Amino acid sequence: MCELLGMSASVPTDICFSFTGLTERGGVTGPHTDGWGIVFYEDGGTREFRDWLPSSRSRIAELVKQYPIHSRIVISHIRQANVGAVSLVNTHPFTRELWGKPWTFAHNGQMKEYQYLPGGFQPIGTTDSEAAFCNLLNRIRASFVQGPTACRELWPMILAFCQECQSEGVFNMLLSQGDFLFCFCSNNLYRYTRRTRQQKELLKDVQMEVDLNGITGHCTTVSVVATQPLTESELWQKMQPGEAVVFKDGDIVWHHLPD
Amino acid sequence: MCELLGMSASVPTDICFSFTGLTERGGVTGPHTDGWGIVFYEDGGTREFRDWLPSSRSRIAELVKQYPIHSRIVISHIRQANVGAVSLVNTHPFTRELWGKPWTFAHNGQMKEYQYLPGGFQPIGTTDSEAAFCNLLNRIRASFVQGPTACRELWPMILAFCQECQSEGVFNMLLSQGDFLFCFCSNNLYRYTRRTRQQKELLKDVQMEVDLNGITGHCTTVSVVATQPLTESELWQKMQPGEAVVFKDGDIVWHHLPD
Repeated sequence: MCELLGMSASVPTDICFSFTGLTERGGVTGPHTDGWGIVFYEDGGTREFRDWLPSSRSRIAELVKQYPIHSRIVISHIRQANVGAVSLVNTHPFTRELWGKPWTFAHNGQMKEYQYLPGGFQPIGTTDSEAAFCNLLNRIRASFVQGPTACRELWPMILAFCQECQSEGVFNMLLSQGDFLFCFCSNNLYRYTRRTRQQKELLKDVQMEVDLNGITGHCTTVSVVATQPLTESELWQKMQPGEAVVFKDGDIVWHHLPD
Repeated sequence: MCELLGMSASVPTDICFSFTGLTERGGVTGPHTDGWGIVFYEDGGTREFRDWLPSSRSRIAELVKQYPIHSRIVISHIRQANVGAVSLVNTHPFTRELWGKPWTFAHNGQMKEYQYLPGGFQPIGTTDSEAAFCNLLNRIRASFVQGPTACRELWPMILAFCQECQSEGVFNMLLSQGDFLFCFCSNNLYRYTRRTRQQKELLKDVQMEVDLNGITGHCTTVSVVATQPLTESELWQKMQPGEAVVFKDGDIVWHHLPD
């Protein structure tokens, strides 16, 4: 199993704080030692960092923890390999351009018999995750030749895809193209939304107190999604199996709860 | 104008030395202050770093200069904006997946009236360079539905594309998909190939002596291509306008000289 981290915010916000907690899981407080990656959206483009070294020992992760990159959407992943060797090609998040936007995808779980269906987008590595990402993008592109007129037209299709994947194994997933953050919970995903400034937050994995005023600046809406709660003091909400949430600018713009 | 740097090597080799010289041009010894990027190929995957800050002031560039990432193919670019704002989306190198390989492209020059022709690959930013990259990949994909049986089938088509671009302006270009490094000289590109160990090399921009034994290890073939020679002591060869060279494992595997 791996660990996911996603953020959607109303103003460009840095994720150093949450990422620091996540990277501790990559070899210090957790067993996820098979690489990590993070993608930041900035003005429609992306900046990515990845390493096949454990995040707790990676010099690149050290930089990301200390360097405040301000972004409205971030997707990060630390890996414990099951399908696919430890290698850069198998390191999430995966990215592809579709309709002139950089799409980013990260997955937690395993689908043992998962099949890639040949199409325009092809996997570079050997994970079930990247195969699923390519299948999803090929399906989206085939359904909307010129792109949808509004992003919300995509949600039912992406949800249906996630449900299919869930029927083949475990499929906790984060997806973005720079405007929205789509999150699907198969069995293990927590979320919280912070609407106002808070004074202090205790980071669970490293017992570090951080003044959030200095991090997000003035009042903002910031939503964070993670495999496990990253802080003690915040009220993390466990998502239900089959639940899907779409965030835009930190707020929920679409929500599916299973029957 | 911008500055290009490319490397092809017979064994995974770090480029800290050449990159250090390049980044000095990004705001210290040169005027290229509008961002920079670098893509390293490792085991078929890529690792990229980019910033819209000048390379001479970028903390990310500082890490890349000090952190020896071993790669057989590297493409880097520092930018002086002409077409397209200073932004991450307009920062070279550009990357796209085609046939399950990560393709990387960087361009030096300007084509004022250049047109993007709608196709599957679409630009994310607003540069003439990314438009040309997308046009090139769309043409390649349309010509080889399943991919070519051998890479060399691609060279005449890529060369013809470069010649067309050259007729529209200045088009010095580096392209790779992890196996080969394709280099086209429109008006300004230097190359050298080093086949044996050398004792010392004087970096032109920072007056620093470096022991190359410690950098490339035992005997290797390393070819470097750059807009301007990066070292004093090496014998850099100025490429001719219209000249194209393809490197694989540091050696030239295809060479086109203009009539």
